[in-house]
Amino acid sequence: MQIKDWSEDGFIKHLAEHFPASDLVCGIGDDCAVIPAEQEMAWLVTTDALVEGVHFLKEQISAEDLGYKTVAISVSDVAAMGGIPKYAFLSIALPKSSDCQWLHNLVEGIKEACSKWEILLLGGDTVGSKRDLFLSLTLIGSAEASKVKYRHLAKAGDILCVTGHLGDALGGLKALQGRQTASKESLIQAHFHPEVDVNMGIWLASQEDVHAMMDLSDGLDCDLKRLLKSSQCGAVVEVSKIPISDALLQTSLENGWDHLSIALSGGEDYCLLLTVSPEAFEELQKAFQSEFEMPLHAIGKITQQPEELIYQKHGETFLVDCTSFDHFQ
Amino acid sequence: MQIKDWSEDGFIKHLAEHFPASDLVCGIGDDCAVIPAEQEMAWLVTTDALVEGVHFLKEQISAEDLGYKTVAISVSDVAAMGGIPKYAFLSIALPKSSDCQWLHNLVEGIKEACSKWEILLLGGDTVGSKRDLFLSLTLIGSAEASKVKYRHLAKAGDILCVTGHLGDALGGLKALQGRQTASKESLIQAHFHPEVDVNMGIWLASQEDVHAMMDLSDGLDCDLKRLLKSSQCGAVVEVSKIPISDALLQTSLENGWDHLSIALSGGEDYCLLLTVSPEAFEELQKAFQSEFEMPLHAIGKITQQPEELIYQKHGETFLVDCTSFDHFQ
Repeated sequence: MQIKDWSEDGFIKHLAEHFPASDLVCGIGDDCAVIPAEQEMAWLVTTDALVEGVHFLKEQISAEDLGYKTVAISVSDVAAMGGIPKYAFLSIALPKSSDCQWLHNLVEGIKEACSKWEILLLGGDTVGSKRDLFLSLTLIGSAEASKVKYRHLAKAGDILCVTGHLGDALGGLKALQGRQTASKESLIQAHFHPEVDVNMGIWLASQEDVHAMMDLSDGLDCDLKRLLKSSQCGAVVEVSKIPISDALLQTSLENGWDHLSIALSGGEDYCLLLTVSPEAFEELQKAFQSEFEMPLHAIGKITQQPEELIYQKHGETFLVDCTSFDHFQ
Repeated sequence: MQIKDWSEDGFIKHLAEHFPASDLVCGIGDDCAVIPAEQEMAWLVTTDALVEGVHFLKEQISAEDLGYKTVAISVSDVAAMGGIPKYAFLSIALPKSSDCQWLHNLVEGIKEACSKWEILLLGGDTVGSKRDLFLSLTLIGSAEASKVKYRHLAKAGDILCVTGHLGDALGGLKALQGRQTASKESLIQAHFHPEVDVNMGIWLASQEDVHAMMDLSDGLDCDLKRLLKSSQCGAVVEVSKIPISDALLQTSLENGWDHLSIALSGGEDYCLLLTVSPEAFEELQKAFQSEFEMPLHAIGKITQQPEELIYQKHGETFLVDCTSFDHFQ
């Protein structure tokens, strides 16, 4: 059997079985590992890798954006558990032919992100590579242990929410691959330079009525299935409630794209997926709006049936084509 | 300018300048970053990357050995600062054509190392790669903050010591590349399956009279120069005192290799390089011998002249050819 016949989740499951965590720490399977630190604090640790030709093309993304993005995607994991990013460790494998100016610019992009989120880059490893460029960043964040939000605590009846537009980054990627249109700039920006709101993660994590939370990095369909699996519950999603940007709608119209399929299978959204106690939802939604001047979008409900995900459009069952991105395919 | 014209140390210096650590934490430039944890404890964090075609050939190393080695080389960094390895995060980029049995075996090797040193693998990232296989491991260890040993605290007059034979792993690599001889098995084993003694690191770190300590991963010549640079002192090394295994001596004789040049430029020795107060040396050497049933080898002295490294043979200046391994070359 070759790896392409084995899914990424399959390999992660294999690893989780072989490397069980202990009672004290939470390991493989959430956005970060959770390691108890002093008194009521915990360390959150996450690792993300970016590979040339798989996650980015050097001809497309600027070195600055690549450096920034390498940090931002890990910041998103820490934020999704309610933590503050603190220390980064960068592993980089460079082909001999890499240009030094390009590398300088990559470092500038990493610096931009580290400055933005007050992260100290404390180490890593720098090695050669025969052909492809490889980046891996391990980020350590800190959080109040009692406020860390996990993905396995969703409850039947919870309101399912997202904090931002879905599908913009995939729209940007598609725009880069294909035809030129007028509306695509903000989409490409979402793909190259994702915004992550750490304060939003901390604020939501401090709310007792938020039960489960994770970041959307592999697309709603794929990530929601992971949440449902670890929480052992199901969900009904009303697709007409999924927030889609005007830019994605417009570009989809111009190019004949199915914007819902893009929004659901997207990936790289780097906003938050969370479930909220139904009794508390209305008040929490108002407080969120007044705190961040943007809506908290309710897109569905958590149900009892383990791992049953149903999409509806105006209440009717709706079939969607989600070919989510698997790195082994 | 291309990367091949820029050394690995050059890039690390560039990173260190761009990412200064704070007063509270120790960042780029030692075996691990040191992050204060609860009360008198500190976290030690290290990252090591292994790239196919640069650090290993899939046709040569078994998947089990590669998995084991990926962990062992980071354990060596934690041990070199006197810490206990605790939590690991593995980033792996796999080409589509990777064989699942091979991957199973890789995981077995990682497990062997994690069991040996009681390490919990808590997370990481698994992604695809277009062509080459990349592995990057971040290891978090813990140590008593006051006992952590750094490489910048060597003092003029200190006795320079190593804890094991030098050059075996490079001898093994050379044996793999060339002619078959009878004596090479233990050398190849040193290359594929390095031994790391965590208790030795902890014991040495607990000795006040040990001033500076680091692991030997890039060869004595290269690593000693790093120690001298960060300690702003020099050294005289008596090459006849450098411990060389019978296997390396024998294989060198059979193949016409210069065993001293191999021992000095080696790399992957994964034993410890340390400096000891001269007054305390004799007693410490005895205690070491009785604790570990092996000698602590004194190979030279620390001198005052910053970064001046002199090799001697029986007291006479001795010229050595050390073409140390730079990953960018």
